[in-house]
Amino acid sequence: MKIALDVMGTDYGPKELVLGAVMAVKEYKCDVVLVGDEPTIKELLKSYGAENEPRLTVRHASEVIGMHEHPGIAVKTKKDASIVVATDLLRNKECDALVSSGSTGAAVAAALFHLGRIRGVGRPSIATPIPSLTGTTVLLDSGAKVDAKPEHMLQNAIMGSIYAELMLNIKNPRVGLLNIGEEEIKGNEQTLATYPLLKEEKLINFIGNVEGRDINKGNVDVVVCDGFVGNVVLKAAEGLATAILTMVKEAILNGGFLAKIGGLLIKPALRGLKKRLDPEAYGGALLLGVRAPFFICHGSSKAKAIKNAIGAAVDGVERNICSRIAEDIARQTKADKVVGTLR
Amino acid sequence: MKIALDVMGTDYGPKELVLGAVMAVKEYKCDVVLVGDEPTIKELLKSYGAENEPRLTVRHASEVIGMHEHPGIAVKTKKDASIVVATDLLRNKECDALVSSGSTGAAVAAALFHLGRIRGVGRPSIATPIPSLTGTTVLLDSGAKVDAKPEHMLQNAIMGSIYAELMLNIKNPRVGLLNIGEEEIKGNEQTLATYPLLKEEKLINFIGNVEGRDINKGNVDVVVCDGFVGNVVLKAAEGLATAILTMVKEAILNGGFLAKIGGLLIKPALRGLKKRLDPEAYGGALLLGVRAPFFICHGSSKAKAIKNAIGAAVDGVERNICSRIAEDIARQTKADKVVGTLR
Repeated sequence: MKIALDVMGTDYGPKELVLGAVMAVKEYKCDVVLVGDEPTIKELLKSYGAENEPRLTVRHASEVIGMHEHPGIAVKTKKDASIVVATDLLRNKECDALVSSGSTGAAVAAALFHLGRIRGVGRPSIATPIPSLTGTTVLLDSGAKVDAKPEHMLQNAIMGSIYAELMLNIKNPRVGLLNIGEEEIKGNEQTLATYPLLKEEKLINFIGNVEGRDINKGNVDVVVCDGFVGNVVLKAAEGLATAILTMVKEAILNGGFLAKIGGLLIKPALRGLKKRLDPEAYGGALLLGVRAPFFICHGSSKAKAIKNAIGAAVDGVERNICSRIAEDIARQTKADKVVGTLR
Repeated sequence: MKIALDVMGTDYGPKELVLGAVMAVKEYKCDVVLVGDEPTIKELLKSYGAENEPRLTVRHASEVIGMHEHPGIAVKTKKDASIVVATDLLRNKECDALVSSGSTGAAVAAALFHLGRIRGVGRPSIATPIPSLTGTTVLLDSGAKVDAKPEHMLQNAIMGSIYAELMLNIKNPRVGLLNIGEEEIKGNEQTLATYPLLKEEKLINFIGNVEGRDINKGNVDVVVCDGFVGNVVLKAAEGLATAILTMVKEAILNGGFLAKIGGLLIKPALRGLKKRLDPEAYGGALLLGVRAPFFICHGSSKAKAIKNAIGAAVDGVERNICSRIAEDIARQTKADKVVGTLR
């Protein structure tokens, strides 16, 4: 199995990504094709003592898409951008899955234009795993499609349910619609129109509306929302978690001698917690609805996160997540057509 | 000055609200009119030794609107519901401001139908103060109007800016539009159409788009968003904060003897932090755009939160927040008409 890794366009430069790949081939049964500036990559491989590792190969790409470029335009004009070259490796079946930590917009655009959607999928959706009090919840869409139509939201629910089953090992995952109240009559135009579609869909275990406070509670496995809402909520959660931990640290540091001693004593216990909350542990978000497993990591991902994303990519390929999505979406769209004929 | 307090329809029953009122008249220069079931309120006043406090009076209301009733229908059919009776006290100028911790939807509906909007305001908006790393940020709309139009979002920005100035004492508050990226080209239909309106508006200090992670950072004072997004984000933040604190507690309790000792040692230091993060400290959210200060507290508010909300209501009246909104909205709508004529 071969994983394409786009090593360019990230916050810390290619060094963390190359190191992540070096770590990954030691842990998982896969080869990694490093896509980006060849001389830089080769030098980094040498510095990690991995220049002769046969499972790591390099594919040169002369261009990079920056975080602030217009994704659609950049993908169309920069034919030799690393994310475009890496995506083409999937299209040509040279690789089985992809990991990137560059611009999310550029990754989605490259996946759409150079890899293509699974037949029947209206719009791809970004599934982000997040820690809850009882395990892991997946939230989608976390940013691929804003102003999603109810039929996109329905497909998000179906794809998210498959993600939870195959990637998080949850049987019959509970699917909730993110809303401003539990009652069916609550919501905006979009969620009010989505609710009946989810309620009628037999491919999912729909438990009704859920609220913001349920995301981390552990009472729902798949949280379905629009790409705008998902993106804002995830970034707000990131900011709040940082703010709370900063405030805790400040309070302990300003709390006098005993508080400082106390801080030292609880440190080992909190290390486990840090691991539980760590977004690096999950590796990355998965772009669902395109023809191959396509992982999008945070721009500030360190080597460990990249390694874990490569591990998740291996899982995605082994568990045939894309074929399963293709099957279920075919069933859903076929059922929709039958209902359409009967009407 | 007289504050109307709706003591019914909350999670813990009227006892916390009546106690909050007893505490408030000791601390602030105001009278409180307690609206709800008279026998219950009188008994509670007696139990707090406040049955002869001349600054506390009771107004009987025979009905209550529950959390799960349809707000619009309930407000129209239950003419003697406590929130309706309390709102009528504002309309008849018997009271100057109102505090409620019953159903938010019912409060908004009562304010709309029984008190009315400030001239020129398209839709009222709920302003919620939230703690940031450097002080307090106000987020609005946190749930009054979903599917807000760009012109509603503009008025949210103007009203939120006045709130930050008068209630949070921030000079020239920085106004940001909650979005999925900082660039002007980022967003959904709603934010893309709102951005130019905010950019051109001279009544506010617009600093551009902000992201979810900026809400608690302290780099923006007024965060403008749609009522759906605001509601989901606030509830997600509430859930995440609870989840993190639960996880910290669990980690310390499961961390062995030393961790437990450490936990005890940091406790006093964390007490200050709890105060800083405590939503009770802020009392409540303010419904902006209606004809009198109208505070909506969390359904689970304890006496202290109610007392603080009454304090905030006193501030709102003293600082003439509604007149100031009326002035600025008149200026904005007038300017809009002039521009309209010139086009």
